[in-house]
Amino acid sequence: MTSTLQRQLLRAGTHGRTAPAGRMRPVPLWSAQTAPARDGRGAHVLADRALTLALQRRAADIDAAFAAIEPAIRAIVPMQFESGFVERAREELRARLDIDVPAKDLHASWLRPLDTRALYAHCTLAVFCRLVERSYDGSAASSSDGESVASLIRRWGFHAVDITPCADGRLSGVVDYILRVPNAVVTSRKSYAGGLFDVDETLRKWESVELMRYREGVPNPATEQTRYLKIGVYHFSSSDPDRQGCAAHGNDAARAAGAVLQRLEQFEAAVRNVHGCAACTATLLIGVDTDTDAIRMHVPDADGATSAARYVDAAELYESTFACAREEAKDRIRDAVAECAGVAPDDPATEGMRWFCAFLVKNNIGQIDAVRSRYGGAYPDRGHTERLMVIGDPLDDVQLRNLAFQAQMETVEEHTFVLDIGVKILRSLHEPRGFAVPVLAHARYDERVPGSLERAQVRALRLRSAVLARFASLASSGLLHVHAAVRAGDGPLVEIVPAAASTEFHA
Amino acid sequence: MTSTLQRQLLRAGTHGRTAPAGRMRPVPLWSAQTAPARDGRGAHVLADRALTLALQRRAADIDAAFAAIEPAIRAIVPMQFESGFVERAREELRARLDIDVPAKDLHASWLRPLDTRALYAHCTLAVFCRLVERSYDGSAASSSDGESVASLIRRWGFHAVDITPCADGRLSGVVDYILRVPNAVVTSRKSYAGGLFDVDETLRKWESVELMRYREGVPNPATEQTRYLKIGVYHFSSSDPDRQGCAAHGNDAARAAGAVLQRLEQFEAAVRNVHGCAACTATLLIGVDTDTDAIRMHVPDADGATSAARYVDAAELYESTFACAREEAKDRIRDAVAECAGVAPDDPATEGMRWFCAFLVKNNIGQIDAVRSRYGGAYPDRGHTERLMVIGDPLDDVQLRNLAFQAQMETVEEHTFVLDIGVKILRSLHEPRGFAVPVLAHARYDERVPGSLERAQVRALRLRSAVLARFASLASSGLLHVHAAVRAGDGPLVEIVPAAASTEFHA
Repeated sequence: MTSTLQRQLLRAGTHGRTAPAGRMRPVPLWSAQTAPARDGRGAHVLADRALTLALQRRAADIDAAFAAIEPAIRAIVPMQFESGFVERAREELRARLDIDVPAKDLHASWLRPLDTRALYAHCTLAVFCRLVERSYDGSAASSSDGESVASLIRRWGFHAVDITPCADGRLSGVVDYILRVPNAVVTSRKSYAGGLFDVDETLRKWESVELMRYREGVPNPATEQTRYLKIGVYHFSSSDPDRQGCAAHGNDAARAAGAVLQRLEQFEAAVRNVHGCAACTATLLIGVDTDTDAIRMHVPDADGATSAARYVDAAELYESTFACAREEAKDRIRDAVAECAGVAPDDPATEGMRWFCAFLVKNNIGQIDAVRSRYGGAYPDRGHTERLMVIGDPLDDVQLRNLAFQAQMETVEEHTFVLDIGVKILRSLHEPRGFAVPVLAHARYDERVPGSLERAQVRALRLRSAVLARFASLASSGLLHVHAAVRAGDGPLVEIVPAAASTEFHA
Repeated sequence: MTSTLQRQLLRAGTHGRTAPAGRMRPVPLWSAQTAPARDGRGAHVLADRALTLALQRRAADIDAAFAAIEPAIRAIVPMQFESGFVERAREELRARLDIDVPAKDLHASWLRPLDTRALYAHCTLAVFCRLVERSYDGSAASSSDGESVASLIRRWGFHAVDITPCADGRLSGVVDYILRVPNAVVTSRKSYAGGLFDVDETLRKWESVELMRYREGVPNPATEQTRYLKIGVYHFSSSDPDRQGCAAHGNDAARAAGAVLQRLEQFEAAVRNVHGCAACTATLLIGVDTDTDAIRMHVPDADGATSAARYVDAAELYESTFACAREEAKDRIRDAVAECAGVAPDDPATEGMRWFCAFLVKNNIGQIDAVRSRYGGAYPDRGHTERLMVIGDPLDDVQLRNLAFQAQMETVEEHTFVLDIGVKILRSLHEPRGFAVPVLAHARYDERVPGSLERAQVRALRLRSAVLARFASLASSGLLHVHAAVRAGDGPLVEIVPAAASTEFHA
């Protein structure tokens, strides 16, 4: 019996995504598993039931993969003093979790028994890496109208979609679940504290994309008047606004929206001023209610200007279109978007952006519906339940609310603020249960650039050392566990970089 | 009476380099001063006597500016307990050094007298910033054959020149003195430990330059088949190779050459592999003998390949062309360059690069001649005598051997190696004489990019804090003094960023 996810995985292979031979075999981790949805039926006419079910199954598979760690370790703990333990334990962990644990982490003696806390953190990070390796990013999210989303987005006037959510783990499903946009159309995705991306770095990314269009006509020639779309995502909590909002903006939704909007405007101005190009970029501000996953879509007006106070509320549209027929519901969304933009519903100049906004709102209504039908309105856990933290380059192919706190950084020195927030959040979740905070220091490399792998390894280890140095007492108490990892672009393998013995805090 | 340097400065104003009104007035710092050259006459037929004299005068002016600090402080120290001291001292320092010292740094009482060590370090950094503001970058170095060097370089097939010397202060005159290339033709200049530049960052710089060619035809349209030239400069000591070579490469000239060459090759391969462009870049490896300023020119062969072992030795050419007539000397240089490249002297395919190499060798012969005629062969100080250290973005418009240890970095975290080398060198020079190590943490901003100034200020202060944290005991003993500074591009002002009181180690 093959699950939807497995079919997606298998389909992935035929879509050009390479996967090492033998990795797609059904292993216990991926065994057929029905999603434990309370009520899988979509109630709203625009909700895509098949997509919601596929996403719920994927979520259940991810949960199951992590849930398998504790029984696996519990199973090997009693055998640790038996002869041949290391090999037996490795086999057990391979069979149950599909991960390889180095022999050195499994040596035990009566004077120094197995460090189960370190092993649990190790397995959490390894399972996460394995899930990334096995994920297929967004094949589930496709347009129900037949046309591929990539082609739709181009037709709406965009050649690149660059999205920056907040580092907060409750946004770690923003692409697949909340906006339901296929990963293939997202050119760049990086998370920063409060959604406050680096304007200079985004300008360089824009230059890089633009040069590709000039030199190679990829994704389309520079002569085509399409735009680079930069999306900034902030978040808030509708039910507990003063405590479950965005920590980076002091739980103030208006402040969060204003600050992200300012960065978006700075980016547009930078391209305009440096390259004399006013029509090269578009920006979009989106707010997420982390209790319900409903978005606020700040539709730009006819001049491309966005207001933090003016938006389409997807939760309201969900209610007001609930009893509509499908086409009528779509029309209402388009009308609401046009009204927000302050233009006629058939205004040609703003059409592309308006249709894109309506597309996202429609997608989001599917997610609101999924949360409502499953949890009866809002998530039972309004706050944080992140399993791990990812720092360095993004590693978020596996999308799921509260899976990981993602904080992109070149160095800890520049981003102590978000690192401290992340460790504080994760610590409050894991330490009371006796667990360590698992952190993955991840650096991406470009196989085409000589020396890039070695530099990525150095960077990942440097980040790891910087985290361990900043939280030295936590690390020496065994309550912080950091792995360094590298990956070739968005390639199929996430490789753990062995730490030099001298930088090791754990035995 | 107006000095050559003042004439250059005044000329600068008419060449589009903006300078604040009133800044060009003759102040004591810039009063007419003849260079104390032992023997100003150029002995070699290719030596440009006027240029050498101008460079020597500039060097003397720079030395005089720093030499004025001690008498100025000595003059105010005895008055520190008199009433009205702060204002009087500020006036005195303004008149003698043309710098503004904040009142808070001049408050003195019997319980807490003037911190003259901090004041000296402060004045050293302020005088350096003032020199940068008043410098004119390379008007002295122009082609003796009438054509502008920028046009010559374009004719030789290059649209950008990007140079990376070692951070070592003995290379801080590499552009103006050693290679005598006008700053106007240097697109990018950054110093790194051992000349080991960042390949990924250079690739981004290349993309940025290339996009400007495509979008705006600046400096020339992308349809013109010119190349981006990346130059890597390593160094060694001919007289004391085992102690006065490059610290970053263990005083091993061959290792230094090989390591810099590897980076150059990695950069070329990166452009080739990422952008499919084999003819877009050229690279050049140059070695400098820091005892004599003579260069080793590693001329690329017909395939563009460079060897660490194959080079033209400018010192040898200096000797072998000493008795020649001017044209004959030039021909001999061109022949030597062609021989090194392994091609005929009239080979058209390699002509541009060969003429550029010959141009640099000819220029360098002028510098060899200047060092010989002034010091009788080699510098009396083979080692380090840097006055200060610059970290962050480059601030090297004022070029002079051993003026500053320049280490470019985004963060201390990534570059502790070179920072530690620099502080160790500067400390060994300054501490025995009772002086603090003066460090300028400098960040450049782009006035066209909104928020860039504020981000640069944050970055400069962050770098400052990171240095003070790394050398906390040195700083608390008053033996390390760090200023944060920002500058708009290569603009006329270097602004000191006031440190928040909480990050202040000095009283």
